[in-house]
Amino acid sequence: MRFGILGTGRITRRLVADLQSTAGVQVTAIASRDVDRADWYAQQYGIATGVEGYQALLGRDDVDAVYIALPPSMHCQWAVAAAEHGKHVLCEKPLAISAEEAHRVDAVCQEKQVRWLDATGWLHHPRTANFSGLEQRGKLGTLKHLSSAVSFYEPFQSGDHRLDASLGGGCVLDLGWYAVGLPIWFAGRPLSVYATAVMRHGVPYRMTAMMWFPDDVTATINCGYDVTTRKWFEVAGDSGSIVCDDFTRPWPEREARFWSHDRTGAAESHSFEGNQEQAMLLRFTKPESDLAIYQQQTLDTQQTLEAITQSLQNGQRCDVVFRERETPAFSSVSLVPAKPTVWFLSGDLMFGSRIRAAAEAAGLEFRMSSGLPTGTVGSEASDEPKDAENQTSAENRSLDPVWMILDLSTRGGMLPTLDADSRNRFPHATWLAYGPHVQVSKLKAAREAGIELVLTRSQFDMRLPTLFK
Amino acid sequence: MRFGILGTGRITRRLVADLQSTAGVQVTAIASRDVDRADWYAQQYGIATGVEGYQALLGRDDVDAVYIALPPSMHCQWAVAAAEHGKHVLCEKPLAISAEEAHRVDAVCQEKQVRWLDATGWLHHPRTANFSGLEQRGKLGTLKHLSSAVSFYEPFQSGDHRLDASLGGGCVLDLGWYAVGLPIWFAGRPLSVYATAVMRHGVPYRMTAMMWFPDDVTATINCGYDVTTRKWFEVAGDSGSIVCDDFTRPWPEREARFWSHDRTGAAESHSFEGNQEQAMLLRFTKPESDLAIYQQQTLDTQQTLEAITQSLQNGQRCDVVFRERETPAFSSVSLVPAKPTVWFLSGDLMFGSRIRAAAEAAGLEFRMSSGLPTGTVGSEASDEPKDAENQTSAENRSLDPVWMILDLSTRGGMLPTLDADSRNRFPHATWLAYGPHVQVSKLKAAREAGIELVLTRSQFDMRLPTLFK
Repeated sequence: MRFGILGTGRITRRLVADLQSTAGVQVTAIASRDVDRADWYAQQYGIATGVEGYQALLGRDDVDAVYIALPPSMHCQWAVAAAEHGKHVLCEKPLAISAEEAHRVDAVCQEKQVRWLDATGWLHHPRTANFSGLEQRGKLGTLKHLSSAVSFYEPFQSGDHRLDASLGGGCVLDLGWYAVGLPIWFAGRPLSVYATAVMRHGVPYRMTAMMWFPDDVTATINCGYDVTTRKWFEVAGDSGSIVCDDFTRPWPEREARFWSHDRTGAAESHSFEGNQEQAMLLRFTKPESDLAIYQQQTLDTQQTLEAITQSLQNGQRCDVVFRERETPAFSSVSLVPAKPTVWFLSGDLMFGSRIRAAAEAAGLEFRMSSGLPTGTVGSEASDEPKDAENQTSAENRSLDPVWMILDLSTRGGMLPTLDADSRNRFPHATWLAYGPHVQVSKLKAAREAGIELVLTRSQFDMRLPTLFK
Repeated sequence: MRFGILGTGRITRRLVADLQSTAGVQVTAIASRDVDRADWYAQQYGIATGVEGYQALLGRDDVDAVYIALPPSMHCQWAVAAAEHGKHVLCEKPLAISAEEAHRVDAVCQEKQVRWLDATGWLHHPRTANFSGLEQRGKLGTLKHLSSAVSFYEPFQSGDHRLDASLGGGCVLDLGWYAVGLPIWFAGRPLSVYATAVMRHGVPYRMTAMMWFPDDVTATINCGYDVTTRKWFEVAGDSGSIVCDDFTRPWPEREARFWSHDRTGAAESHSFEGNQEQAMLLRFTKPESDLAIYQQQTLDTQQTLEAITQSLQNGQRCDVVFRERETPAFSSVSLVPAKPTVWFLSGDLMFGSRIRAAAEAAGLEFRMSSGLPTGTVGSEASDEPKDAENQTSAENRSLDPVWMILDLSTRGGMLPTLDADSRNRFPHATWLAYGPHVQVSKLKAAREAGIELVLTRSQFDMRLPTLFK
């Protein structure tokens, strides 16, 4: 994949080097409004071409994807423009300055069938899959409270967009992207938020917030530009806790670590190697790797930060109203036989990879998402109008869930929405829900919701290797 | 000092052993409503006498002080009764179930000239004086945000008062005493609080709160009975941070530690020995040790928890309205010449001990408090009516501040209240304020408030040894 870089203000030598050193990735051009500036950066970073103006870069044949390094206020416009030119979009955080803009980027990228991702590196570090995976979650027990703190003392360059409200500045959309993203990654979508901020230079300079999630999960977060370097989280369940002191990026010259603790306070240290930016780039550039869960994380984070901004403005606890992705995950057109698919409703990447392995061993497709697939599936809608333009998208999207697997630990809040109607949308699916054996009430609620197979986690774990055969 | 124990429900073998092994301390009696129960505990714990009924214990000549181990709803009644019998009062946390009750205990104890303390051990661990002392505060820079989390998973005994709202149960007055006390210890009195709780058994079972302090200092706290064992805090300034993972009591079989970090993330580990309960008992039982700063901490914590309870009830951010201690720190009567005194307005115990040494070397008294002394001082009021009853109290209280020293780091919020009137109340005092050299605006504000001597911390540090001579 050949990258063109839009903007010079926010790129770092590190990221360009990561792009240039990732297998299958090249950087072919960099664009600035000022051609001298573009040329200077091209020369500094060993990029073949400096380009005058962002539009000119989008017209180039030697660019397959853009990396957007512009101020946040320009992200939506140029992500949409790039997608319309058929370029894949890798965008600096935040994806946009509003949830509406973020969903527009998503919708246009889906329509144009280009891949998109926001460049939040920590989600892709091997450590992250481990600390949010099944094994660690099992030790946590039922999730109860999350804390995160991200601060860097006055990290500004001259003319920094972060100090300019009109460019989407302030800590909420910047450091808050990490601080709020962490609890969302573990606990899913919050129900409501309450936030206050210290203002300086006309932007939120330090922000403190509380978040409320389904099942009485709570979170407290803090981020700011007037506090010493911090990038830690603590995730606490009823039987254990996880602490990481550098989750946004490992401390320089140290291996990436986190610690798990049991109720006695005994700590276990876990260490990992890996370059999170390269892992992100590999995931972004490999066509077979599914980005849906990261895209959902982006959209949910953007929506939550919008509610936090609303709370800052009105001084009230605010509900977070999530909108669903505008383009259905399934086309309503099916020209080819639908592929039997195992669908995993969870945030648990590590266990997801085990289910994927079991599904693929049984010749089934695998998909994972945080919410129900929308639209009508597979063969049920084969009498819809057909046209050539939809054919490719139909091939990609024609999936027929034969298993719907609900992770009660992280998606138990979804149970009340699973009425018969929503289940009937997946006529070939066997529904399965699983959760820790101590979560008696959730297991009971799943049975009462009419789910056919309700298992404890250890039962599911044992049956998984042969379940789909 | 000979202790009698009121109640058997909340005592632990550990605390009785600490009492019995502290130099100068004996346990002579234990009282229960049920004499068999009293006798059983007396025998189990090696206490000479089991007593039927709390009143009977208060009447005993072999008891100088009580340790109150009753449910919180009974603390005020029996603390007041003990004081009225001339017994010193050491009371399990919380001191009472309302700020009004807490102030009543304080007022009666002052009137009866008995000592009182709530039995919050961590305040007295040698580690605490270090992590909240001048050296560590210097590394923190300006205080910005505090986080604390205290939880123990279902720590209940059968019939536990903590699950009974009518006995003062719930996590707010229990674990919240630690979680809220920590930021108060560092940052002083909060301006306002916002809190929500998960309710179970009719009591707050897990509580999450935000706190706002003067100078834009913020805090987030979390405590509860449905979460794994946690007892950590993080204190973050603009140049460093301090983390402790067991501040309420060191993990068993491990030395007491905390970590300080600079902006690069480099961590320094600090280790301490000591038994916090014995340190507390020594402080409580030595007549010359000043308890004022701990009593202020108790009263401020109680008032803050009351505001948190109010916020839980009305769902709003609530201002915390502090009341001052009812009995003046100085008597308005002076039969003896007032003692020249160095008065230190600060929360910094470690630096306080250095100032005390310098003051005593110069033949001056030393007092430390978090707020201005109330009442009229020393010789200024010598024309007030005199009577024999007031004489002893006048001797104890007749102090004439010749130096008033204001620590701008921790008490800078007091500056706006220091008008000429309040300064005129201490006619012989030279006012001095000091703060880190980077806090230019606070140093300037101190000068503008008319303080005669405004020094940077390092200047003050250098002049201290000879300042009072």
